[in-house]
Amino acid sequence: MGNIQRNKVKDVLSGAVAVGSDVLLKGWVRTKRGNKHVAFIALNDGSIIHNIQIVADLQSFSEEQLKGVTTGACIAAKGKLVASPAQGQPVEVQLVEIEVLGECDPETYPLQKKGHSLEFLREIAHLRPRTNTFGAVFRLRHAMAFAIHKFYNDRGFVYLHTPIITGSDAEGAGAMFKVTTLDLNNVPKKDGHVDHEQDFFGKATNLTVSGQLEGELGAMALGEVYTFGPTFRAENSNTTRHLAEFWMIEPEVAFNELQENMDLAEDFLKYLIQYALDNCAPDLEFLCNQYDKELLNRLNFVVNNAFQRLPYTEAVEILKASKQKFEYKVEWGTDLQSEHERYLVEKHFEKPVILTDYPKDIKAFYMKQNADGKTVRAMDVLFPGIGEIIGGSQREESYDKLLTRVKEMGIPEEEIWWYLETRKFGTAPHSGFGLGFERLMLFVTGMGNIRDVIPFPRFPKSADF
Amino acid sequence: MGNIQRNKVKDVLSGAVAVGSDVLLKGWVRTKRGNKHVAFIALNDGSIIHNIQIVADLQSFSEEQLKGVTTGACIAAKGKLVASPAQGQPVEVQLVEIEVLGECDPETYPLQKKGHSLEFLREIAHLRPRTNTFGAVFRLRHAMAFAIHKFYNDRGFVYLHTPIITGSDAEGAGAMFKVTTLDLNNVPKKDGHVDHEQDFFGKATNLTVSGQLEGELGAMALGEVYTFGPTFRAENSNTTRHLAEFWMIEPEVAFNELQENMDLAEDFLKYLIQYALDNCAPDLEFLCNQYDKELLNRLNFVVNNAFQRLPYTEAVEILKASKQKFEYKVEWGTDLQSEHERYLVEKHFEKPVILTDYPKDIKAFYMKQNADGKTVRAMDVLFPGIGEIIGGSQREESYDKLLTRVKEMGIPEEEIWWYLETRKFGTAPHSGFGLGFERLMLFVTGMGNIRDVIPFPRFPKSADF
Repeated sequence: MGNIQRNKVKDVLSGAVAVGSDVLLKGWVRTKRGNKHVAFIALNDGSIIHNIQIVADLQSFSEEQLKGVTTGACIAAKGKLVASPAQGQPVEVQLVEIEVLGECDPETYPLQKKGHSLEFLREIAHLRPRTNTFGAVFRLRHAMAFAIHKFYNDRGFVYLHTPIITGSDAEGAGAMFKVTTLDLNNVPKKDGHVDHEQDFFGKATNLTVSGQLEGELGAMALGEVYTFGPTFRAENSNTTRHLAEFWMIEPEVAFNELQENMDLAEDFLKYLIQYALDNCAPDLEFLCNQYDKELLNRLNFVVNNAFQRLPYTEAVEILKASKQKFEYKVEWGTDLQSEHERYLVEKHFEKPVILTDYPKDIKAFYMKQNADGKTVRAMDVLFPGIGEIIGGSQREESYDKLLTRVKEMGIPEEEIWWYLETRKFGTAPHSGFGLGFERLMLFVTGMGNIRDVIPFPRFPKSADF
Repeated sequence: MGNIQRNKVKDVLSGAVAVGSDVLLKGWVRTKRGNKHVAFIALNDGSIIHNIQIVADLQSFSEEQLKGVTTGACIAAKGKLVASPAQGQPVEVQLVEIEVLGECDPETYPLQKKGHSLEFLREIAHLRPRTNTFGAVFRLRHAMAFAIHKFYNDRGFVYLHTPIITGSDAEGAGAMFKVTTLDLNNVPKKDGHVDHEQDFFGKATNLTVSGQLEGELGAMALGEVYTFGPTFRAENSNTTRHLAEFWMIEPEVAFNELQENMDLAEDFLKYLIQYALDNCAPDLEFLCNQYDKELLNRLNFVVNNAFQRLPYTEAVEILKASKQKFEYKVEWGTDLQSEHERYLVEKHFEKPVILTDYPKDIKAFYMKQNADGKTVRAMDVLFPGIGEIIGGSQREESYDKLLTRVKEMGIPEEEIWWYLETRKFGTAPHSGFGLGFERLMLFVTGMGNIRDVIPFPRFPKSADF
């Protein structure tokens, strides 16, 4: 193929390569069609959702030479970039030389036919990134991950890797997976119970459900930190909203009170969505057309509206006063359901909503207690379509109040002595929140099932690939 | 404290805030000293390694007001920024108003005294980020993580989240942790063996040792991908170089052959180290002075030298011809030890080295086989001080050759059918490598123990915090 470097389809289609240039393209054949005189090869290399059209003059290329050019085959193609007479594409390539790098048997290739269901594609997660849909989703996933790092880096936050394997299950955010090196066929016992002293870490360990507690340790030294790592729930939830393994972003900021925490959450979400609108237009347009006509409207709805902020108690009054028929009844003291959250966002305020000051009994032990004795400085950010997207709070910085709450809730002090000590030694007001990355991806892509926004989803009875 | 916003110490010291301004600082007291007339408070807020000096005129502040200002206490201090008469600091703050946000009992605060050993600090990992050393290490760790994402994003790579929980252990990179929801006190059995059908995923699962195999799936669709996530080894290694939980970066690129893979690795490492030199000077200078006088020289050694590239076979000849006394004898066919690698880098070539084309029997099954039948297209990047920092290869893209090797090595085909299929459907040459993030951090910080470059290290008998 000579000495020229490969050109990415993205660069060729964007005008970064001059018409008239020699180009070398490598990628996977999406379709080949044509007539007696000419063959049209649609090539995709993953750099952009669009294919480039390669035109082979059949006077120059024999049937034999193009035989291996079938859907799914990998080819290298050299040619001249020319303006395209066809609609919808600025340029195409006049083929000069072609090599089939990897053939693809049309009889057995699972992506041969068009219009596969998302369910079927989940079963071939090793091949689905080759489809338009999953190419778009995973490029968007990359863009959002990068935007998250850029947002925090630009503001001087420190990215903190909190542990995945943990010896504590204090947060109680959900059922945990056990991590062990013991022989499960022959578990060592002591006094009738598992002898974890013989285990790798010398005690029982689990996969983390949240990096927040360790994140707070970082914030109380480095000021502003964030985590971005995998978290786990061993809940037997076979829904479109739950994964056993998912990624979470948890910023934690010393000296921030609830107001600044809300500002940070609102700035953060708007930044991410604006970043997607600015950087991922072709992928968003495809998903909007293909799956969800309201997608772009919903994204603009978030960036163009100030989030409405109000206490949970007021929200409950609004919901009770509404004439809306809800499946679940609203009562002060109970957690709001997605239907209530969406009513507030989509019908009542017509903008994203941040609810604050929830009843303490439905929130975690570490949230700062209000003077009313009933509520805590929690905040949930509610979005159209999905309801809660962020949950956070100001943290209880008083050692005595925190310890009292820990005892009330029966959390073993010996598991979180290190957490309690941050309140003993130079405590400070501080706040943070958690954003489930796949929840964000559902919102940004408009996809309906959380298993379709992570490359290799883990859920009950499924850990393939 | 009125309505002014908090200033970060970094901004105040860097000249971003004008002398004469009112400033509000919040952070942790490192020291308080003084005389009858004046108290000097050294305050750190984690934004930079340097403290800011706050000067309290004792005519304006009573002993009572400053009583709580002890080492480790958290304070808010308002005052005027003035040019400092003292050496080594451009500015200081004349205190106007002070509030102790969190006291810190000098009798019980573990960081009270100076000069703690790194061993002791490891036992209080919840507090060690408040020290100069760990502030520097974790800010550098952040900078390197961000630089990694920026490097790949700028080149159009897609960040791919490969799974943490895996049903396959095909790569065989090391001993694995089991992940289960079975009751260990009462493991369900079937035909005398653990009944994993009752387990969460319906089969035995482990924590990943590498995201490479799934990374290849991404590359064969999206072209250029990278992973950056936690990986695990359940090996009972109590050394300064091993962790049970560590982070790894694994780029994988379609159409790259070994030459381009080496170019990518060299560009990548030079970019990261240049980024540290450009963005982390105060932290690097501290670590250089405090721990490792050669640190900056070693970093510059890497960015200023073209990496020497040669085959393993030639390296063995060089080592055998050298008059050096090695602890381990060098023979063709055996893996090189750190002493050999360092000899090549530090003594023989005096530049970083990339060795290629290793004996196939000491390398993984997926590496591309050379025509000699004895070697594979592997590459290891060797660095001064630490030896191997990157390991990678061109991958075997031939289905038949790969399958033959899989069978030779006894790898169960049913565990990696999805991996094999990438060679069946549109295969292509492709290459990648792995960089252990903590190995990089050892190199960049000059720290001697890998447990000191990750916030909460996991190793045998230790999963605290």
